[in-house]
Amino acid sequence: MNACGLIVEYNPLHNGHVYHIQQAQKLTGSDCMIAVMSGNFTQRGEPAILDKFSRTRAALSAGIDLVIELPFLYAVQHADLFAKGAVSILHALQAEHLVFGSEDGSIEAFRQALAGQQANQTAFELVLKQQLEHGLSYPEANRAAYEAVGIDSSLNLGSPNNILGFAYMKAAEKLGTPLQVHTIRRIEAGYHEQAISGPIASATSIRTAWLDNKRQTVKQAVPGSTYELLDDENLHSWEAYFPLLRYLILTRPAEMLRQIQGMDEGLEYRFKKYINQSLNFKQFLSLIKTKRYTWTRLQRVCVHLLTNTQKQFVSENLKEPSCPYIRVLGMTKKGQAFLASRKKRLDAPLHTQLKDGMHPVADLELQAADAYYSILPPEVATQSRRQEIAPPIFL
Amino acid sequence: MNACGLIVEYNPLHNGHVYHIQQAQKLTGSDCMIAVMSGNFTQRGEPAILDKFSRTRAALSAGIDLVIELPFLYAVQHADLFAKGAVSILHALQAEHLVFGSEDGSIEAFRQALAGQQANQTAFELVLKQQLEHGLSYPEANRAAYEAVGIDSSLNLGSPNNILGFAYMKAAEKLGTPLQVHTIRRIEAGYHEQAISGPIASATSIRTAWLDNKRQTVKQAVPGSTYELLDDENLHSWEAYFPLLRYLILTRPAEMLRQIQGMDEGLEYRFKKYINQSLNFKQFLSLIKTKRYTWTRLQRVCVHLLTNTQKQFVSENLKEPSCPYIRVLGMTKKGQAFLASRKKRLDAPLHTQLKDGMHPVADLELQAADAYYSILPPEVATQSRRQEIAPPIFL
Repeated sequence: MNACGLIVEYNPLHNGHVYHIQQAQKLTGSDCMIAVMSGNFTQRGEPAILDKFSRTRAALSAGIDLVIELPFLYAVQHADLFAKGAVSILHALQAEHLVFGSEDGSIEAFRQALAGQQANQTAFELVLKQQLEHGLSYPEANRAAYEAVGIDSSLNLGSPNNILGFAYMKAAEKLGTPLQVHTIRRIEAGYHEQAISGPIASATSIRTAWLDNKRQTVKQAVPGSTYELLDDENLHSWEAYFPLLRYLILTRPAEMLRQIQGMDEGLEYRFKKYINQSLNFKQFLSLIKTKRYTWTRLQRVCVHLLTNTQKQFVSENLKEPSCPYIRVLGMTKKGQAFLASRKKRLDAPLHTQLKDGMHPVADLELQAADAYYSILPPEVATQSRRQEIAPPIFL
Repeated sequence: MNACGLIVEYNPLHNGHVYHIQQAQKLTGSDCMIAVMSGNFTQRGEPAILDKFSRTRAALSAGIDLVIELPFLYAVQHADLFAKGAVSILHALQAEHLVFGSEDGSIEAFRQALAGQQANQTAFELVLKQQLEHGLSYPEANRAAYEAVGIDSSLNLGSPNNILGFAYMKAAEKLGTPLQVHTIRRIEAGYHEQAISGPIASATSIRTAWLDNKRQTVKQAVPGSTYELLDDENLHSWEAYFPLLRYLILTRPAEMLRQIQGMDEGLEYRFKKYINQSLNFKQFLSLIKTKRYTWTRLQRVCVHLLTNTQKQFVSENLKEPSCPYIRVLGMTKKGQAFLASRKKRLDAPLHTQLKDGMHPVADLELQAADAYYSILPPEVATQSRRQEIAPPIFL
């Protein structure tokens, strides 16, 4: 069996994603489609609007055969770490292909960029360091460094999709994986596009429209299964977690906040200074935002605070060259057959059920899950928690 | 000016309290009535049903001239520490009298008990230690030790009121204060009495009746001002904090929980074990309860978890022989005149406003206040927090 991997968040799954699954299958002729998916929190530092199980069901309904969780440890990190976790999982599964969406759909531009960066590594790093010292945010400094070594001209690194794609290429190269990397042109609206104007819209615009109660607008942009889930399930957004975040910032002394992943350069004092002036999450982020910190970076720090993710833990566990296990969230018969065919030669232990104390990275996963479910009524939260240690979804 | 101190919680203030204020004034002939009052959390380990400012207003309306806060550090502790904080404040204020309510109203019984305990200190401590090792709870072991040295026969130490009164006597003795201690017989129903059957009822029965929506029953047992406050203000009960408590127990590893005041002898594992089976606070406490831990002790641990009160901080700060400052929550003109008359010879700094970073004990006070207000909508919580650092209430 041949397998093709996609790296996804499906927050929520929409028509553009369905198209991407179909195109990737066609392009690679694979028998099994694998999605490596963020769990309850996303790369941009947000609680996913639907929990991992609902999004797994949506994926299995839309043509995916096997959903593997990208552990929280890797999911809520900058592009390179996110990519490291996801690509190493596909490598461990011995998938043949990885397909990602990009603005132009040309893998050649990415290959050239990769070669260019490798040839100019020293110059690249020098510019990056200088720009960071000048107070630029990490993505801005990174972009300036790419430009300095002549990469940005060939590859649009202003696009989050291209940044992620490039990160996958770098991760695959570093890992020395035989994984064949392809890209297809995304047909969806821009990543940051705000309005929905047809069957293809960005996940961001869909979330915004849904939370604004514009249900009919959303209906045209998502498959029926996603629509039903949005309609039925408990939705999660930063605002619902704001009281909890506020409580944590006020009742933990600065020294405790400083232990949290991403809480660097005195950011804890900014958190403490502005929390009492903030009536909601958006206002709080606007107040703590500066040129140096992107909105996304600040959101990630908030996720780590909410989930009690400690700096020391992250640095110890991210040292490993690859994701320590493969966790199955859901599968079809085809996905099951694929796993059976690879079982004896997988590069990491396969887990169909998490257990307390199984692995530190899995413990953090459960801790993050508990934080995510904490805004639900206790009986619902308890049920959701039970699903975390139950067998995968089978569709 | 002569002053008489009472040590109170007023949770909420009821007719029995008003009677006690009047009787204490008559008995001592004092010009100024002082209440040393717990803040937002009470000695039994509960969030006070009304916040400290509402309860201060009620006290000033009921005959009290000066309300001083018993810092959170002392308030949510066993009787001896509670007494140490409160008595040392009255001593620092150079009040002439302390009057407490007891079952029989005879100070002689308390004096004899005190003399008895002092004469048999070694035997007392031996029995206490043995009984604790046999798995009795602290109050039970204490009582057995009192019995062994012949105290319980003369003084009913099964009554929480008498336990507290005896603790005041011991604290006054230890401090060597000139404070004259008196007791009057309580006319209210028993401390643990469940039903309200007239104008005098226990605070516990009033809280229960109010939370059960039996408003007319409550009306007969409290002054009009308390009734209005109950009707107007945001009420606090353990159940409202349960989601937060649940979140903390699930997302903090055992090593972190172990730093919390009172989290001893592996209690953190019991907390973690039973939290996922609990749908509410009462159920949780019933599940973690054993012979060794009283309900009150477990509630106090929950308060310390909620307020992030660390063991190390408590032991460092409770070493001091007396409360480090006097914080005025509210006063009448008479109370103000009293303070003016004593200002130059107070035994501790007088604070009419708290400030961040003023004193570690005050910082903990603000931290506990933030935890207490965290269940309110952010705009109300912010307002309440502002009151914490505002001048006292003047009535």
